[in-house]
Amino acid sequence: MLAVSMPRIRFEELHETLTGVLRKLGFSEERATRCARLFAETTRDGVYSHGASRFPRFVRMIRAGRVDVGAEPALVRAHGGLERWDGNRGPGNLNAWQSMGRAIALAREHGVGAVALANTNHWMRGGTYGWQAAEAGCIAACWTNTMPNMPPWGRAEARVGNNPLILAVPRARGHVVLDMAMSQFSYGALASYRARGEMLPVEGGFDAEGRLTRDPAAIEASGRPLPAGYWKGSGLAILLDLTAAMLSGGLATHQIPGDPEREAGLCQFFLAMDLAGLGADAAANGIADGIVESIGARYPGERTPQLRAENTALGVPVDPAVWSEIQAMER
Amino acid sequence: MLAVSMPRIRFEELHETLTGVLRKLGFSEERATRCARLFAETTRDGVYSHGASRFPRFVRMIRAGRVDVGAEPALVRAHGGLERWDGNRGPGNLNAWQSMGRAIALAREHGVGAVALANTNHWMRGGTYGWQAAEAGCIAACWTNTMPNMPPWGRAEARVGNNPLILAVPRARGHVVLDMAMSQFSYGALASYRARGEMLPVEGGFDAEGRLTRDPAAIEASGRPLPAGYWKGSGLAILLDLTAAMLSGGLATHQIPGDPEREAGLCQFFLAMDLAGLGADAAANGIADGIVESIGARYPGERTPQLRAENTALGVPVDPAVWSEIQAMER
Repeated sequence: MLAVSMPRIRFEELHETLTGVLRKLGFSEERATRCARLFAETTRDGVYSHGASRFPRFVRMIRAGRVDVGAEPALVRAHGGLERWDGNRGPGNLNAWQSMGRAIALAREHGVGAVALANTNHWMRGGTYGWQAAEAGCIAACWTNTMPNMPPWGRAEARVGNNPLILAVPRARGHVVLDMAMSQFSYGALASYRARGEMLPVEGGFDAEGRLTRDPAAIEASGRPLPAGYWKGSGLAILLDLTAAMLSGGLATHQIPGDPEREAGLCQFFLAMDLAGLGADAAANGIADGIVESIGARYPGERTPQLRAENTALGVPVDPAVWSEIQAMER
Repeated sequence: MLAVSMPRIRFEELHETLTGVLRKLGFSEERATRCARLFAETTRDGVYSHGASRFPRFVRMIRAGRVDVGAEPALVRAHGGLERWDGNRGPGNLNAWQSMGRAIALAREHGVGAVALANTNHWMRGGTYGWQAAEAGCIAACWTNTMPNMPPWGRAEARVGNNPLILAVPRARGHVVLDMAMSQFSYGALASYRARGEMLPVEGGFDAEGRLTRDPAAIEASGRPLPAGYWKGSGLAILLDLTAAMLSGGLATHQIPGDPEREAGLCQFFLAMDLAGLGADAAANGIADGIVESIGARYPGERTPQLRAENTALGVPVDPAVWSEIQAMER
């Protein structure tokens, strides 16, 4: 997904620059450092659509008052290992990081922990929270709803969210982390294909006339990305919205403004299970190795450690226009 | 999916006949009644691929000693709301029913309950356990691994399982239950299209030459169904196998015999969350109504109550050859 010619910035420089911008926007030192780290690590790990390139929009939403830099999640109600939290419209990645951390803590105590978070903001890269749980030795799942940006199967209007689903398992030789949007191609992926002048490898949505197409620009123009697996991705998107909104008591997709600059008040769900509590961590690791070896094909998350190492060694690729914009924000 | 000309059997007659067969096979009265009910209800609810039509194979597997009619799940290890059970190769639908029941009980106590079940057998219709949880007022998820019967994206050989995923939410005006296999079309669906002489509405797999095709017979012959969403369904299938096998400590897909008559020793996972424990059941019901109304398209599970009512009133459609075979078993 990376244009080879993209200039590379040292990870520490990227992190410090983003931290500086957030500090100027009123973040505490600790929160600026963590929020910036989550953005910088996303780009470092090769998820270029949701790291530094999303930072300018994040800053615009702070300036517009849609993200409250000082707000932290507050516990609303608890029942054993299941908790409901209010995100208070704080920074989405900080809220999500804290929520998965809480789910992990609940899993240590109750075997399984579940946190439903309402009234939060875009979490940026969903996989971040899967990696977080896997690093803690937990099997985890999480998902978020989004604004309406995908037509359900059988309709032309965007009435469901492209709600991403993350599943993660820990493994000593490399965690397995699936981070999938419900559309066959995310809007970020469509933009990347268009920028490279490429057609999609399979049909990715409908054009303005309602015909299935591989042309990324036609799908961006129609706003009709294809749910992955047609009716299957559509149905799964509906269930992810239902479960996140019902458990958290927050806004459902149809209640969220359908504009990326105003997309706020999301619901998220975080689940963690503690393998060590079952005395199962070592055996489970062996089971995971056996499965990974049996597949004979790439597994979800396989490329991440390699991309991480490469981008750490050579520098993190950042679009020059984005980098200029971010540097101007810091001054 | 139903040939219009299929003869209809009264639900009670179907249930009693299946119960009689199981009694002769050594089931206790209570277990025969429940196991038969789960088969009969599957057909009654319109899931014709996994009800009465699967019963003859189930009986063959009992006679071959692959299903132990008297075996019940045994608790292996518990940590709060997370438990590991051994299915002892008992009847798959009874084991799964008991496991979701246990997850619901754990959810009542701990807010969230999770049961990982190893060493079990095919659960038949996965949606059964989603409906079970929704009837109990719980939000639920469950999945199972299977024998290797789907090639992962990027390979031609069946190395992953077509592991179904079920998500369910309770709603007074009709539960929402998603029951999806990881392939775009299940083998049952392919057989139905072939029997009707129809092509698939979208590409469903590869033919013997490795070309994508809509011909169901060509896909059955090649054994190469297409994962739903290409790499997405493939990745999700891998994670469902990993999580079920790691949490339960049982066999992974690659360790399960690749023959439907010998497919045994599966792993399953059951998750339930109690809305009432959060004091959230009434509000959540309203949220669900709002989402369902906003979609403007069919939601997962929408047709089930209608099919159930119709088949209860008119009789349950059963293939005449299957019905003759079952009746002969009872005599």
